[in-house]
Amino acid sequence: MMIMGIDPGYATLGYGVISLRDQKFHAEHYGAIITKSGEIFSKRISYIYDKLLEIFHLYPIETVALERLYFQNNQKTAMCVAQARGVILLAAHKANVSVYEYTPLQVKMAVTGYGQAPKLQIMEMTRRLLKLEKVPKPDDTADALAIAICHAHSVGIISRLKKFTT
Amino acid sequence: MMIMGIDPGYATLGYGVISLRDQKFHAEHYGAIITKSGEIFSKRISYIYDKLLEIFHLYPIETVALERLYFQNNQKTAMCVAQARGVILLAAHKANVSVYEYTPLQVKMAVTGYGQAPKLQIMEMTRRLLKLEKVPKPDDTADALAIAICHAHSVGIISRLKKFTT
Repeated sequence: MMIMGIDPGYATLGYGVISLRDQKFHAEHYGAIITKSGEIFSKRISYIYDKLLEIFHLYPIETVALERLYFQNNQKTAMCVAQARGVILLAAHKANVSVYEYTPLQVKMAVTGYGQAPKLQIMEMTRRLLKLEKVPKPDDTADALAIAICHAHSVGIISRLKKFTT
Repeated sequence: MMIMGIDPGYATLGYGVISLRDQKFHAEHYGAIITKSGEIFSKRISYIYDKLLEIFHLYPIETVALERLYFQNNQKTAMCVAQARGVILLAAHKANVSVYEYTPLQVKMAVTGYGQAPKLQIMEMTRRLLKLEKVPKPDDTADALAIAICHAHSVGIISRLKKFTT
């Protein structure tokens, strides 16, 4: 079973594909999809869509785990992230991949067992759980791997899952 | 030249394709893409994406005109509309169609010449300009046709256009 965590964005979209074998996590593939700020927005999200479909084609991903989107102070940025998120959901649907979403609190709890854990601690725990030499860069990639771990922890505990239906 | 106006939405997406021949507007095709409320959201926006590509395939549409999205009180709805909007932008990009956006004020001014025009007056003017027997239903479709007319009025007056680049 492969899970792809995604930290949604339109400038930098972090992703991390993990698998769970022999009760251990393995980082199969991770990185970031980066789009050029000077490009027309529709071209940027089209690039994200194509790249995601490529990854879904290369890895037998069953599930995408996304961070739930909260509205920020900058409404323009929030709207652009939401638009990119629509494209992520579309790509997952076209690739027949289920989507689940988690709050930042759920991710912190799943990775560190502590809801107030600072960002650096989550990243370090993510590195350890995946037996990586270094914390992956950019932060969006490390965040995406943490979200994937969060989903892996939640599998089988349906009450902790919130299927993305709205 | 065909212009497609779109009133973005995820439950009901209004659209209207118009052409400008002999200095007159013609309604070529109009309607609404309606998705089922009980379906998973990613399936609903996937349906919208497929239907839009179908329309782009059937009509030689050069431009999509969209109403600019403003955040509403209901943030959940606003986020869902923004996600659907991302899919509209993607479909337009994949079909090599340019996207322009207009404010409600710009649409009112273009259709009625009056920025404070009530909704019914905009609809009636849209009906007259397109020589339709009745105002199209649902309202989303009439709104979409008004947005298309707004773009048609703006063509050639570059300063009034705001290319969707952010």
